[in-house]
Amino acid sequence: MNVLVTGAAGMLGRKFCEKLVAAGSIAGEKVEGLTMADIVDGPPISGSPFPIQSVACDLAKPGVAEQLVADRPGIVLHSAAVVSGEAETDFDKGYRINVDGTKYLFEAIREAGHQPRVIFTSSIAVFGAPFPDVIGDGFFSTPLTSYGAQKAIGELLLADYTRKGFFDGIGIRLPTICVRPGKPNRAASGFFSGIIREPLNGQEAILPVPDTVRHWFASPRSAVGFFFRAAEIDGQLVGPRRTLSMPGLSVTVGEMIESLRRCAGGERVNLIRRSPDSTIMRIVEGWAQALDASRATKLGFEAETNFDEIIRAHIEDERIRI
Amino acid sequence: MNVLVTGAAGMLGRKFCEKLVAAGSIAGEKVEGLTMADIVDGPPISGSPFPIQSVACDLAKPGVAEQLVADRPGIVLHSAAVVSGEAETDFDKGYRINVDGTKYLFEAIREAGHQPRVIFTSSIAVFGAPFPDVIGDGFFSTPLTSYGAQKAIGELLLADYTRKGFFDGIGIRLPTICVRPGKPNRAASGFFSGIIREPLNGQEAILPVPDTVRHWFASPRSAVGFFFRAAEIDGQLVGPRRTLSMPGLSVTVGEMIESLRRCAGGERVNLIRRSPDSTIMRIVEGWAQALDASRATKLGFEAETNFDEIIRAHIEDERIRI
Repeated sequence: MNVLVTGAAGMLGRKFCEKLVAAGSIAGEKVEGLTMADIVDGPPISGSPFPIQSVACDLAKPGVAEQLVADRPGIVLHSAAVVSGEAETDFDKGYRINVDGTKYLFEAIREAGHQPRVIFTSSIAVFGAPFPDVIGDGFFSTPLTSYGAQKAIGELLLADYTRKGFFDGIGIRLPTICVRPGKPNRAASGFFSGIIREPLNGQEAILPVPDTVRHWFASPRSAVGFFFRAAEIDGQLVGPRRTLSMPGLSVTVGEMIESLRRCAGGERVNLIRRSPDSTIMRIVEGWAQALDASRATKLGFEAETNFDEIIRAHIEDERIRI
Repeated sequence: MNVLVTGAAGMLGRKFCEKLVAAGSIAGEKVEGLTMADIVDGPPISGSPFPIQSVACDLAKPGVAEQLVADRPGIVLHSAAVVSGEAETDFDKGYRINVDGTKYLFEAIREAGHQPRVIFTSSIAVFGAPFPDVIGDGFFSTPLTSYGAQKAIGELLLADYTRKGFFDGIGIRLPTICVRPGKPNRAASGFFSGIIREPLNGQEAILPVPDTVRHWFASPRSAVGFFFRAAEIDGQLVGPRRTLSMPGLSVTVGEMIESLRRCAGGERVNLIRRSPDSTIMRIVEGWAQALDASRATKLGFEAETNFDEIIRAHIEDERIRI
């Protein structure tokens, strides 16, 4: 089976491809070839048992998607997206990539006619405050960002194309991914990863919100696990509501810090510097604190059950010396 | 103030324009001009105190929307749409008109830069079974038709364009409109109007479902009232959730028939012929039975409170002799 990954140079797309190379198979089938598509080429992945084609392309240009699905991939992971901050500042680019690009890809798959499994990465940004303490599976999409609106539109398209039999789609609403490896970014959510990642690397981290702030997390390792599970589950079991809120962990910043203390010691914790930022605090107040992911859990999606696991997964996956 | 109506040759768009001509003003302002746009020209409306421009055009063609908003209408009623049956059988046309056409119109308004009130006609088709007996204001959009998906996408765009300040949008989710005047159509919901309209005209009507079937209705007169109310309300009061489920009346077919008996006598009722149709029954089972429209009601939207009023409005508006 061939596999296509859009957004393959992104953190999660890349990790999925690496895991695919290591596993050699997905959904019980041997991988024959992998197409890694993104706006830029990522570094090559070595030691693959199957050929990898890296394609630098703009999915929102007519004709591009048709080429990407020309080898009729049995599994398509569509993780390409303009992220929330950029979608908010560049309205046109967000809609062009996140909506038009998604529509072009879905149309190309429809035209190819082989009805693959399509995994669409959605986001808890489809929800907008005010919401209940735990956001149920039937809570409605009232996004308060363009990114959230674009992901919600993607969910609607995914469900409709699936209902019409054009492909077999599964949407997965990812929790905030933590701990993100790499350099700090300027996302408003960046500090959640920063207060763990930087101290583990012996560097200072800024905490702009109080310890009482609660949010919803899963590790990059869990996210990759979601993609593999989404590739293999029986679409019939999912029913017409094709997008699932993924399991995660609802913890406070204070609990995260205590977890860091347990996993790496008090000296690391002392590298966290509290510097309240009312702008970030206001943004974070509009975010989900916890979701009811029981539908996904019943379908076999699994995430960490305590934050120590998330930190240990980061230490292990990023080969950090403590 | 100028007013633009898309879908102006449709039943509701037309009735809105007629009411506008009769009133001469909307949202407390005198109407200076009206543009009636549709894929076909409707018959002219006589006796207007302001000039009416009738434009036959395809909103989904680039450049068309820009022309329609060239006179900077202060109010835009966007009621143009491919209806549910056609959107289901012609997938591409549905998306082209209902999504692309809507996006083109919204973009043209954004470019014009004058931030008008935009009234978007949505539908209870954004909801998909299974749902609770009464669909709350926070119930999520899981449409089971392409039409429903397209309307849900329109709602998301409306909210996002409003949030960004490109215009001031209000979405209104219409109940099933009953009694629709004119000839029977082939919509699955057509019989709801048919069992009232045909007997009132002395003609036989087919009832394909049991008397116990319950559904959610408002009259054409109420729908036009919704548009006028949506034109004038303070957008600040609506908040970020820009689409409102409109008030309606939840009644059973049996109650509708009893109402017809009260309004027009038993002889008319005898013109209803029961001819069960399992296909229609199955479709109707997937439809909403009642909605919680308390948000809209608090904002001053009003509908009939009993079915007799709906029948009497039809008799009056269509000048039927009993």
